[in-house]
Amino acid sequence: MNPIDQRLKSLNIALPEPAAPVASYRPARAVGGLLYVSGQLPFRDGAVVTGRLGDSLGTEEGAAAARLCGLMLLAQVRAAIGFEHLASCVKLGGFVACTPDFTDHPSVINGASDLMAEVLDEAGRHVRFAVGAPSLPLGACVEVEAIFALQ
Amino acid sequence: MNPIDQRLKSLNIALPEPAAPVASYRPARAVGGLLYVSGQLPFRDGAVVTGRLGDSLGTEEGAAAARLCGLMLLAQVRAAIGFEHLASCVKLGGFVACTPDFTDHPSVINGASDLMAEVLDEAGRHVRFAVGAPSLPLGACVEVEAIFALQ
Amino acid sequence: MNPIDQRLKSLNIALPEPAAPVASYRPARAVGGLLYVSGQLPFRDGAVVTGRLGDSLGTEEGAAAARLCGLMLLAQVRAAIGFEHLASCVKLGGFVACTPDFTDHPSVINGASDLMAEVLDEAGRHVRFAVGAPSLPLGACVEVEAIFALQ
Repeated sequence: MNPIDQRLKSLNIALPEPAAPVASYRPARAVGGLLYVSGQLPFRDGAVVTGRLGDSLGTEEGAAAARLCGLMLLAQVRAAIGFEHLASCVKLGGFVACTPDFTDHPSVINGASDLMAEVLDEAGRHVRFAVGAPSLPLGACVEVEAIFALQ
Repeated sequence: MNPIDQRLKSLNIALPEPAAPVASYRPARAVGGLLYVSGQLPFRDGAVVTGRLGDSLGTEEGAAAARLCGLMLLAQVRAAIGFEHLASCVKLGGFVACTPDFTDHPSVINGASDLMAEVLDEAGRHVRFAVGAPSLPLGACVEVEAIFALQ
Repeated sequence: MNPIDQRLKSLNIALPEPAAPVASYRPARAVGGLLYVSGQLPFRDGAVVTGRLGDSLGTEEGAAAARLCGLMLLAQVRAAIGFEHLASCVKLGGFVACTPDFTDHPSVINGASDLMAEVLDEAGRHVRFAVGAPSLPLGACVEVEAIFALQ
């Protein structure tokens, strides 16, 4: 068992089944030493977590959903290349479905950022953006894309 | 004639004139084996396709507009490096101008994704994100950016 | 003093203190010859410039804020690697907090694009996207992320 799988086990984190793309693209693609991963939605018990921040959802619920996106990102990495080839998390791009007066996008996307630090330690420290969107696919409350470095 | 130009011809697809940037940037930039292409708007007969999904535009109209963005991306690739240097489509980033209750962003951006698969076959299978925006430049209904791999 | 610092001095441009991340991520990350920089907000006198385009803010005010984002991007580059290792600006990703009827995102993000050309000349000519968002972190009116090439 490689160190990342061991870490997940010790943290009692079970990754979900990697979601199939909801349309005509692929979940991950390695090129030039990097692994690009498609935007992932928050799935809980097989259903997308829907809603809008600043309206139907609070920041903690949003952060929990962003963590689910992060788990799905890691599941896609494992399915695409296996953790033995994962070096670090380079970048997260976070989109938050929200109202025009919502201002705490960073705390929401922290749900995914904190997960990367938790699982990958120093190698999980990435750059990112966190922005709002009026709506996201399937009514999801958050979507997170990523770039990882390979080894 | 290289294979991609041949494929376009057999599919009866004519690429548009590559649009000039509407502001102070460049349409494409090669670095480290990748070609980054600026966000492209949907042009039909020289005019931007405007409107919002969930409001003035239906999903099929949105997908047709996203296909126009894809054609413009390919036109920018050809103008920047020529298809003989194009290896594959790595990533699309899709923004859909939409209402807060719109949920079918994936079907809209499929207009661009399906075009890449159609023209580039297996090499056209990319990662992507598809998200909403309250509005886009010039009132466009969709904007798609891309990363291609060079050979 | 390297050429970029000299250029900033001759233009009478003083870079701000690089802002600390407002959450659990890092401001910049070098990988594979590129420097990825996190989305930067517009800071003036230590405070975020807030508001929405098409509503409380005009396009010139938005462009001035985007220029502040650009200054912060350059400050992050200098802090992360020093300008002696900076080769060029590859890409800007610009998000504009705006109303659904706003259409001049390009002029807003030009505030950042023009700065790169001003400071880096030909090496400052990048690809980009410019899109709308219903809201941005801390109520910011604009957020700009970037990729730079290293030497």
